Amino acid sequence: MEMNISQSDYFTNYEDLEIHRLMLEDDPRTDSYRRAILENTSYFKGKVVMDVGCGTGILSIFCAQAGAKKVYAIEASNLSNLATNIVKENNFEEVIEVIHSKVEDVKLPNDMKVDAIVSEWMGFYLLHEGMLDSVLVARDRFLKEGGEMFPESAVIYVAPCSVPQLYNKWTNFHGVALSTFAKQLRASKSSKPEIMQISPEDLLGAEVAMAWINLREDTVNDLNSYSIQHVVGSSKMGQYQGLCVWFECNFPQLSSESRIILSTGPEAKLTHWKQTVILLPEEQNVEEQEPIAFQLDMNRDVNSPRRYNLELTLLDPEEVDHPIPCTCDMTKCILMKTVMLQHALNQNNIIEDEIIEDDE
Amino acid sequence: MEMNISQSDYFTNYEDLEIHRLMLEDDPRTDSYRRAILENTSYFKGKVVMDVGCGTGILSIFCAQAGAKKVYAIEASNLSNLATNIVKENNFEEVIEVIHSKVEDVKLPNDMKVDAIVSEWMGFYLLHEGMLDSVLVARDRFLKEGGEMFPESAVIYVAPCSVPQLYNKWTNFHGVALSTFAKQLRASKSSKPEIMQISPEDLLGAEVAMAWINLREDTVNDLNSYSIQHVVGSSKMGQYQGLCVWFECNFPQLSSESRIILSTGPEAKLTHWKQTVILLPEEQNVEEQEPIAFQLDMNRDVNSPRRYNLELTLLDPEEVDHPIPCTCDMTKCILMKTVMLQHALNQNNIIEDEIIEDDE
Repeated sequence: MEMNISQSDYFTNYEDLEIHRLMLEDDPRTDSYRRAILENTSYFKGKVVMDVGCGTGILSIFCAQAGAKKVYAIEASNLSNLATNIVKENNFEEVIEVIHSKVEDVKLPNDMKVDAIVSEWMGFYLLHEGMLDSVLVARDRFLKEGGEMFPESAVIYVAPCSVPQLYNKWTNFHGVALSTFAKQLRASKSSKPEIMQISPEDLLGAEVAMAWINLREDTVNDLNSYSIQHVVGSSKMGQYQGLCVWFECNFPQLSSESRIILSTGPEAKLTHWKQTVILLPEEQNVEEQEPIAFQLDMNRDVNSPRRYNLELTLLDPEEVDHPIPCTCDMTKCILMKTVMLQHALNQNNIIEDEIIEDDE
Repeated sequence: MEMNISQSDYFTNYEDLEIHRLMLEDDPRTDSYRRAILENTSYFKGKVVMDVGCGTGILSIFCAQAGAKKVYAIEASNLSNLATNIVKENNFEEVIEVIHSKVEDVKLPNDMKVDAIVSEWMGFYLLHEGMLDSVLVARDRFLKEGGEMFPESAVIYVAPCSVPQLYNKWTNFHGVALSTFAKQLRASKSSKPEIMQISPEDLLGAEVAMAWINLREDTVNDLNSYSIQHVVGSSKMGQYQGLCVWFECNFPQLSSESRIILSTGPEAKLTHWKQTVILLPEEQNVEEQEPIAFQLDMNRDVNSPRRYNLELTLLDPEEVDHPIPCTCDMTKCILMKTVMLQHALNQNNIIEDEIIEDDE
């Protein structure tokens, strides 16, 4: 299971202005960066910042608006010309220096270090495109000890789901039976991740975090491989048709009143990343609380490092460890929940006993 | 101005089930064919039908449901296997014969002729993909004298429009001035037609039909070239940013109560064809009733006949003929309208005089 992305075309693809229009018009994306920067003006004031893969330069301009003393806006594609003009249009040519280069080839004057790195590097299911590698290289080379990363962490979540909009209409479609079509559609779609919108009500259980990425500490090697084995009790009776994958990015909370989080989950406002769904070749009917056990592996493709192979393995709930507590209805999990509840009650009793003793 | 479509990939592209899902789920499309066929059951009963480019076979099944005696479902791509299975799933294998072939290579038993041809051949701005050629070949070889074509005619409409969703937000975008981006976006987009949705309120004047295609009579050569020179008075003050192109297909009205029309215009329910917009490199501010004069040429590409080159020429309203009556506010058109109105009033007076005379 893989998505194709050509290495050589990577930067030229980003010369298509339509891609930038879609990204700019993605309000949750643009607005979370704007707020993370402009609600932290007392942090940015007088700081030196690097924007890795600046595109149109909008994040660099946010930093300049927030009072940054200097912004190095790095852009490997020919869009750097446009960024230079946009910087001029906003009268920040004294603050923002657009550098047409891969960040790996950048040399700053006097081996200068920067206070903060901002970058919008996220791809579908977070890791597609592998641009985070370059951001981590920039961090290691250019970020001061104790400097800030925008965002500073990211989490990948997965949850089982139904996809009724893909599959649940073909038995009687305008009076025609198209089950044969539905079957072949499902088979073809289970060979690569589907970028689509999932409604919250189509999730079949609580999400689990399969990867926590700490942008201050993780290395490029840490990004090579993520794996999770999990069991979740279905939250309702339904059709288990795929695994929904999404991500969340967290920005540093410095002078801002609350932490800014960019979420791309089914509950959040739709972004251009939508959600990624790994579709099952055959659906499974599940009852409420029935255990759904799976293993998901995301491994960087050895031959093309901007690409990940996603592999979903269905597991036998009898044969894997369940989380404690577990939401499923298997006897061992119900027993465990009872034991834990009893333990909690006993603890409360002890506390109450102590309180009573204190009162005496 | 052109859209790319590779000749060699044409049929294999249609093996992607996702394309068929989008077409099937296009309700105005699927439902207009269903109604055009199933509301004419008294016509279809006992008839022999050919479905050119049957895809999943859904139109053939509609014909069988309407009582057709025999349906030849022609499909050049490997989707013919799926169509065969879908026909079986609907128990029409005695009626529908799926033939895996280009229609140009088909031979029917005993040089049989068919009573009707159904086909969904329309591409963006009607002619993209050039599939109508094959439908006309099928008509000339296989349709009985006086046989029916579904659809039987098609019209291409054009009207000047604004595209505020593309352009009118960049002056102050999340607090950043992006006019430079907007300008480059407009330049890049004016080099090929944009497939997008236009709201009725973004049309700047009445549409004009630039091509009428009669599927009973027109030849493949008739499809090579369409051209219109037109002047329309702007229906309101606004920004003239492009020319909106759409089409309409008309089905035969046989036993059905009303004529079934599939419209892909801004006023109609959105289809997967959306509308096609030819964007101007620079916008023009227009006043209400200001004349907008243009010439649009659609010419088949000589090297790749599935492709058309669309060329928009802005004309000087002073130098071209205006329609009579014309909606613009140029003196000659206002004078002409006054003269016509006076003439109409005089006619009425004469009629009234005659009536008065009759009364005497």
